[in-house]
Amino acid sequence: MRRTQIANAPIFLLVISFICWTTALASICSTNGLPLVRNINDLPQSDFGRAGLSHITVAGAVLHGMKEIEVWLQTFAPGTRTPIHRHSCEEVFVVLKGSGTLYLASSAGVKHPGTPQEYAISSNSTFHIPINDVHQVWNTGTDEDLQLLVIISRPPIKVFLYDDWVMPHTAAKMRFPYYWDEECYHFPKDEL
Amino acid sequence: MRRTQIANAPIFLLVISFICWTTALASICSTNGLPLVRNINDLPQSDFGRAGLSHITVAGAVLHGMKEIEVWLQTFAPGTRTPIHRHSCEEVFVVLKGSGTLYLASSAGVKHPGTPQEYAISSNSTFHIPINDVHQVWNTGTDEDLQLLVIISRPPIKVFLYDDWVMPHTAAKMRFPYYWDEECYHFPKDEL
Repeated sequence: MRRTQIANAPIFLLVISFICWTTALASICSTNGLPLVRNINDLPQSDFGRAGLSHITVAGAVLHGMKEIEVWLQTFAPGTRTPIHRHSCEEVFVVLKGSGTLYLASSAGVKHPGTPQEYAISSNSTFHIPINDVHQVWNTGTDEDLQLLVIISRPPIKVFLYDDWVMPHTAAKMRFPYYWDEECYHFPKDEL
Repeated sequence: MRRTQIANAPIFLLVISFICWTTALASICSTNGLPLVRNINDLPQSDFGRAGLSHITVAGAVLHGMKEIEVWLQTFAPGTRTPIHRHSCEEVFVVLKGSGTLYLASSAGVKHPGTPQEYAISSNSTFHIPINDVHQVWNTGTDEDLQLLVIISRPPIKVFLYDDWVMPHTAAKMRFPYYWDEECYHFPKDEL
């Protein structure tokens, strides 16, 4: 009898771990019972596999039930950057700290982004990205983090990623759900 | 002849003043040729007749041609507050400085807002207002400004104002265009 108990211990621990993991995931992903006022410092942050990035979803569709706007707090270590990308939603940036460069190419009427315009950005800068324009934000500084408040419409975001500025728009790789929505996003049920 | 010239001088000055005023207004209100990257410190700010308020439209529909989101930077001196109001758009707040109180009443299924819930807010707080919920943000502190980044969907904003929390929803006074959109908003031409 004692032997069976010991033999079952690993299975028991595995079951308990699984229950804890699914409960934690359910609670991270549930928008029910979220406090209305949240402290941004207490919200989960991650680099989502991109060294030098810190992303916090301040108010999001998938995480907080937002319908029309989503707000992120993103920090880029010196030398790090967003991918070259586009999305069919409006986006506003407010630079809270640091400095860097915005690269922006209009997608209107051409087959690939081409050489982007460069704009210097720094603390207290604000700018917006016209819908579908290909862009990249880069912390071109050497010693200071670049911290941005980012606002998008039509959440959750669907991103088209480019390897470089000469990649055809049609070859850009779609990513949906995006990294920070992946864990909690539920695909709508097939209604057929 | 000399007499006529002197007599005409006030009219001439009036015409010149009018030309200068309309030119200045046209340039404030034109979204053409706006720099893409703007410094928030250089953007116009006003109290719009409400003592203790500083409002800056960081990225706006009427002022900057935004279609889906609008961003404001608002500062409330100690003791000052927003009116009690509602609007049919999403709204997200990020508290940048100071502290205060959010008053929030659900508008669902009742004739008037009724006693609102109270929530303490402070630097690094974030919260959002569900569409059409009646609310008020108040700098209840005594010595520090309350500074907020405010984001709304569906700009430009149409606000319904309440005198108090027992005013029926149907009696709330509509204000459109709102104070900061008034100068530059153009009503669509009647198509009939």
